[in-house]
Amino acid sequence: MSSAGKLGERKIIKIFMTLLQRMPKMPIPFGDDVSAIDLGEGKLAVIKCDMLVAKTDVPRGMSYWQAARKAVVSTVSDFAAKGIQPLGLLTSLGLPHHFKRKDIVQIGLGLNAGAREYDTYVLGGDTNEAEDLIIDCVGFGLSDEARIMKRSGAKPGDLVATTGSFGKTAAGLKMIKDRLRAPLETRRELMEAVYMPNAYLKEGLALAKAHAVTSCIDSSDGLACSLYELARMSRVGFEITRIPVAISAKRLAESQKLDANGLALHGGEEYNLIFTFKPRDINKVSEALGGAFFEIGRVTSRTERIELKTEGRVEPIKPKGWEHFKRN
Amino acid sequence: MSSAGKLGERKIIKIFMTLLQRMPKMPIPFGDDVSAIDLGEGKLAVIKCDMLVAKTDVPRGMSYWQAARKAVVSTVSDFAAKGIQPLGLLTSLGLPHHFKRKDIVQIGLGLNAGAREYDTYVLGGDTNEAEDLIIDCVGFGLSDEARIMKRSGAKPGDLVATTGSFGKTAAGLKMIKDRLRAPLETRRELMEAVYMPNAYLKEGLALAKAHAVTSCIDSSDGLACSLYELARMSRVGFEITRIPVAISAKRLAESQKLDANGLALHGGEEYNLIFTFKPRDINKVSEALGGAFFEIGRVTSRTERIELKTEGRVEPIKPKGWEHFKRN
Repeated sequence: MSSAGKLGERKIIKIFMTLLQRMPKMPIPFGDDVSAIDLGEGKLAVIKCDMLVAKTDVPRGMSYWQAARKAVVSTVSDFAAKGIQPLGLLTSLGLPHHFKRKDIVQIGLGLNAGAREYDTYVLGGDTNEAEDLIIDCVGFGLSDEARIMKRSGAKPGDLVATTGSFGKTAAGLKMIKDRLRAPLETRRELMEAVYMPNAYLKEGLALAKAHAVTSCIDSSDGLACSLYELARMSRVGFEITRIPVAISAKRLAESQKLDANGLALHGGEEYNLIFTFKPRDINKVSEALGGAFFEIGRVTSRTERIELKTEGRVEPIKPKGWEHFKRN
Repeated sequence: MSSAGKLGERKIIKIFMTLLQRMPKMPIPFGDDVSAIDLGEGKLAVIKCDMLVAKTDVPRGMSYWQAARKAVVSTVSDFAAKGIQPLGLLTSLGLPHHFKRKDIVQIGLGLNAGAREYDTYVLGGDTNEAEDLIIDCVGFGLSDEARIMKRSGAKPGDLVATTGSFGKTAAGLKMIKDRLRAPLETRRELMEAVYMPNAYLKEGLALAKAHAVTSCIDSSDGLACSLYELARMSRVGFEITRIPVAISAKRLAESQKLDANGLALHGGEEYNLIFTFKPRDINKVSEALGGAFFEIGRVTSRTERIELKTEGRVEPIKPKGWEHFKRN
């Protein structure tokens, strides 16, 4: 019989989805970045939890302060993708028995720093003993139903864009794991991407306010996988004409003979927003983001087909990326 | 320097509370059973997370189905203590790599069963790989601020009562751990308390509706510790005149020469509600609970002093109970 390791995260989630009875009138379907409850009069309560497990989510060299902050960033990023301000956070902690007081202080300070960075607060939580450091960060917010940017609204002909470039986190993780050499500035940039990631909350809120976006997702499972998720939930395809590879990732790739596009497409733990919009709304988008976005292609009607079109060549993009239980 | 093991859960929580900045105008203070956010017009959004870690929270012989259900019960119990219906749940899971498909199915079914038992739904969650089975269950609900039963409202002269008897879980855990013998009926009752605990949600909702309660807490840390928490948050003391020991716990204690009062006072993972009310409201309380409650004593002005008064003797009750990181 299949083990969790053989099934992989996505199949496990599918199994759960067949077993859980659906709440009638769910305003946001299973599988979006957040969950929601209808409060009436067009208002939604929005909740989301995201669990950090040290063994898989905390790379070598990351401090407990950074790990705690990252747990917050990762939950805030899901709110960013829906265009919702998180009003409050809860944190359930699993702490190993041997943790020192100073480690616990670092975790508390990191949680607080992450929360305050995104103008929210930790309101409470739960503390437990566990074998490994576990931080489950829960966020709560409110939204008008009409304003929320779902995964399911992309339409053929829409343009697709991202709030930032890709590949720094994957390059940084590879650099750390394989102890690769890199020039100081590249090294600094890649390490910052790994240890101090940021959520695009300001950008997500501005996009939702502009009412210009047809769908949106956060890219924490990697660019390729997140595009597949968007495609699946919207029943569309994508023709990608440009992979926005970060310069520092490109530099590491060149010096170490790595595939730069691969780093950008198939990494993970990178908290960009990927969103779609009507071509006529490009000025609204540009205004909302102060011009800081990367147009990367367009939406097609070829359901769940994601292709890279460059210099006349068309090739499929593989749905490979970060997945729990799978060893990449 | 102190380790988590030496500090214990309560000191660790205190450390966190000094590090986390307070949200202005928190409608429910840090340290109550749930957290809340003011939605305006006297309405609160209420959230709570409770993490189950297999190593400490899943006793020998408990199935994955039961463990998943228990994770739900434990979160629902906190809503019960505040008199709030949980409208939706999220579950963050850590699953070991070797878990089989059938284990995963049992967990999904257990989560769903727990949710439906309390008239709520699992709306989503997060799935991760972990060393040990971890289930963080998050609940969300709405409440009128005036209706919520806080930990902080007990006043000297109030009566204190519980929704059920105590000691079955502690006796059951001891029976399982030490492989004690017991008559079939006792055995069945104690095992049910351990493997199939119940939250007093119906009772909590009825008490809140009756507007008769001055403070309330769920007893998941044990009767003694929960009384101390209530005393601390309300700045009062308790004079306990009767320990409501469950008959099956008493039976095991007698046959095995155990301290029955100790089992009732210092166990844990028992999801009773402990609440206080004005003597004049006893009929309201009785009506709300259909007469099914145990009056156990009264509130005094001797802050955080909790005493047992029986047959003319007065002795302090020790604040001993379940605490993570501490080995009892």
